[in-house]
Amino acid sequence: MGWGDLGAFGEPSKETPNLDQMASEGMLFLDFYTANPLCSPSRAALLTGRLPVRNGFYTTNAHARNAYTPQDIVGGIPDSELLLPELLKKAGYINKIIGKWHLGHRPQFHPLKHGFDEWFGSPNCHFGPFDNRALPNIPVYRDWEMIGRYYEDFKIDLKTGEANLTQIYLQEALDFISKQQASQQPFFLYWAIDATHAPVYASKHFLGTSQRGLYGDAVREIDDSVGKILKHLQKLGISENTFVFFTSDNGAALISAPKEGGSNGRFLCGKQTTFEGGMREPAIAWWPGHIPAGGVSHQLGNVMDLFTTSLSLAGLQPPSDRQIDGIDLLPAILQGKLIDRPIFYYRGNEMMAVRVGLYKAHYWTWSNSWEEYSKGIDFCPGQNVSGVTTHTQEEHTTLPLLFHLGRDPGEKYPLSFASDEYQRAMERISVIVQQHKVTMVPGEPQLNVCDKAVMNWSPPGCEKLGKCLKPPKSDPKKCFWPH
Amino acid sequence: MGWGDLGAFGEPSKETPNLDQMASEGMLFLDFYTANPLCSPSRAALLTGRLPVRNGFYTTNAHARNAYTPQDIVGGIPDSELLLPELLKKAGYINKIIGKWHLGHRPQFHPLKHGFDEWFGSPNCHFGPFDNRALPNIPVYRDWEMIGRYYEDFKIDLKTGEANLTQIYLQEALDFISKQQASQQPFFLYWAIDATHAPVYASKHFLGTSQRGLYGDAVREIDDSVGKILKHLQKLGISENTFVFFTSDNGAALISAPKEGGSNGRFLCGKQTTFEGGMREPAIAWWPGHIPAGGVSHQLGNVMDLFTTSLSLAGLQPPSDRQIDGIDLLPAILQGKLIDRPIFYYRGNEMMAVRVGLYKAHYWTWSNSWEEYSKGIDFCPGQNVSGVTTHTQEEHTTLPLLFHLGRDPGEKYPLSFASDEYQRAMERISVIVQQHKVTMVPGEPQLNVCDKAVMNWSPPGCEKLGKCLKPPKSDPKKCFWPH
Repeated sequence: MGWGDLGAFGEPSKETPNLDQMASEGMLFLDFYTANPLCSPSRAALLTGRLPVRNGFYTTNAHARNAYTPQDIVGGIPDSELLLPELLKKAGYINKIIGKWHLGHRPQFHPLKHGFDEWFGSPNCHFGPFDNRALPNIPVYRDWEMIGRYYEDFKIDLKTGEANLTQIYLQEALDFISKQQASQQPFFLYWAIDATHAPVYASKHFLGTSQRGLYGDAVREIDDSVGKILKHLQKLGISENTFVFFTSDNGAALISAPKEGGSNGRFLCGKQTTFEGGMREPAIAWWPGHIPAGGVSHQLGNVMDLFTTSLSLAGLQPPSDRQIDGIDLLPAILQGKLIDRPIFYYRGNEMMAVRVGLYKAHYWTWSNSWEEYSKGIDFCPGQNVSGVTTHTQEEHTTLPLLFHLGRDPGEKYPLSFASDEYQRAMERISVIVQQHKVTMVPGEPQLNVCDKAVMNWSPPGCEKLGKCLKPPKSDPKKCFWPH
Repeated sequence: MGWGDLGAFGEPSKETPNLDQMASEGMLFLDFYTANPLCSPSRAALLTGRLPVRNGFYTTNAHARNAYTPQDIVGGIPDSELLLPELLKKAGYINKIIGKWHLGHRPQFHPLKHGFDEWFGSPNCHFGPFDNRALPNIPVYRDWEMIGRYYEDFKIDLKTGEANLTQIYLQEALDFISKQQASQQPFFLYWAIDATHAPVYASKHFLGTSQRGLYGDAVREIDDSVGKILKHLQKLGISENTFVFFTSDNGAALISAPKEGGSNGRFLCGKQTTFEGGMREPAIAWWPGHIPAGGVSHQLGNVMDLFTTSLSLAGLQPPSDRQIDGIDLLPAILQGKLIDRPIFYYRGNEMMAVRVGLYKAHYWTWSNSWEEYSKGIDFCPGQNVSGVTTHTQEEHTTLPLLFHLGRDPGEKYPLSFASDEYQRAMERISVIVQQHKVTMVPGEPQLNVCDKAVMNWSPPGCEKLGKCLKPPKSDPKKCFWPH
């Protein structure tokens, strides 16, 4: 989902009344970022509070490449990483993930081995269908074992876009919340829905209801579900004791537009890129009785902050034995403070850009290769900005391209290198970047090796279902990440 | 000002708390249009309820050209046109225009000859400074006579952007409202401010206060002023008896970006073009006690509707002896009805496009000429859409380019000519266009002839001020309209 997909963020169809109401009852973040313009690394960052380049969710196979966790990925979240649910356990929290995990699908990476107590969902994206011979369909798990596979037991109609997965995820969420309320145990629910990811889907009740086509139907269903979850918290009388945050893992994928692509508002490009459209996200914090209603924050935020903020809410400290990139947002949320902090925009192993205040400096620019672009793969459709949305990786490390995101949120007008403003801003930014680079200790890259043998051939529980498949012989290779 | 310039419409700086509050107390229009992507024709349409091609505010000097009323224009609003204030007089209204008139500056076009009772402002744009020898500075009038000139008596500092004109206009508005309230006479106030038009200006108090630079400072000052006007109405106890509408005369001018250019949100291109960015406008209706608070309307609206709607509010009928394009919006505003009506997008003498429901069909496409574009004049910076933002005038009258503005508000993905959807939509649209064209009776074009002799050399009142200048010999020529 992109920054511009909600009514509260200016989507001209204004079809998200529940999320808009959540914003009007809570706090809208206008300058909130993901840690990476792609799903897996973002989610790893959210749960570890650390940049993907630290927690291992990146590749060194080639320079500045987006990598994720498809079925044949060998890596996943390292045991050495401390995930938010592992830490929350210490404060008595019961933790559940509903939906997409995406931090590795081999047994050692299973969410229940990393602090979650319950899981309903799948380890990888709902791509497919595969044929269950050359390639297995993605499994859906309940807790330790698979209970079926996409396109077999969990239907997604690729022609009509019909699938009732969001409804299933919603019911799972409501049931879990009810159970936790009944048992008076604190809980952390990570509701990782994926209806707006291609292939986009919505349930029958929502199909055809949006002005925006199937993608809009999916947004409407998510909006409706969020509304139901919030109402459920209120009905159970625990809304003033439950902190809720809504955000996304990357900008809308414009390659899927217009049928399955969303909106990044007036920002440049989309998913896969380190322009604002790829990494600035819708974000709403909700906590009635604590967060002043109708607040709007310009605090620079990041999904990694949810790690630190959640720990803070639970009365816990973040680990002190490692670098944590997320900050505690509570002073911004509860007291309206503005905390000065940079935002780093990474693509794979490269820091592409940094934001400090309203300035954003690009040290590298790249949308995608000429080769891909010539095949029609365009991450910035209708948005070519000469010298900015480049199709070769262009290095600007000695003279970064500098934008003022207040006057120019669309990153269309680089400041003149000769201007005083450029000099002043870069003096400040250079110090921050230098310190970041000097102290950076990259983690072991997890997304380098692929092997067909590790695909979801025989997930735990497959025997009971008669759904085990025979894996091919192991043949590990460098994964190919084209962009 | 553009669709995307207000917080309520998704501007990421969210710096318009007063207009956003006006929206939350009134009704936000998401699909509201101007009648033309340029100032003078839009304003003529607003006050006559008729398309510029009917009321004469267009040119036939060349095909599909934007024309307006610079100082050397010979034409202006014809006496045969009936303006909103002329009609409102019949219901006892006192009418005032504050700010830019732009409907012709020669004596016969004076606003007080066309129904206004009072005027404070200027007949043309605040361009300049001219040198008062080769070209006179633009005069500022109070009622019948000039009281000074821009850059002499009414300063605009072109270096700092400082000018206190909006403050003067605000005080004029507050005083007029107070006077009308005291005398218990109904009033029509046309508050035609122009601070966001290049050269953009703001008063000292607002300079440097916006994240968005000088343009944002101007927006903030307008926002603040609107808030003060609304509060004034409330303080005087007449807010429930006063209908207020906020909108703009064209999309933000992207050629002025980033320093003096605004935002058209996610819409394509800007001022001068018939893409959404040129003609979709911010629009808010406010009438406490009558308009339900927090309403959002998808009614297709047009500035021409303000003519008919205002008459309706005053208990008057629109003239029946001529074609009126504006419709009465009260059913949409007060009862939430959706009235099916087309929106026509004209550029000069050509219907470039039409919107019916969520479909928009382009019969002609043009941004500007290669010649202008090669000089760096770009109405769509960073937004080239191949085959859409064309630099030659391209005719599509047999197979219009069709967009679905719900799925594709940015007009980036024309529907396939071969699709069923294209066929179905065009069947409906073609009938509407044919009827429009068959019944169209264009008015006498007013913007064809230019003559240096008609410039503001010696406006009425200049003698008293010692500010009369000697006009050159009359030498009427065809005006040159490059785009």
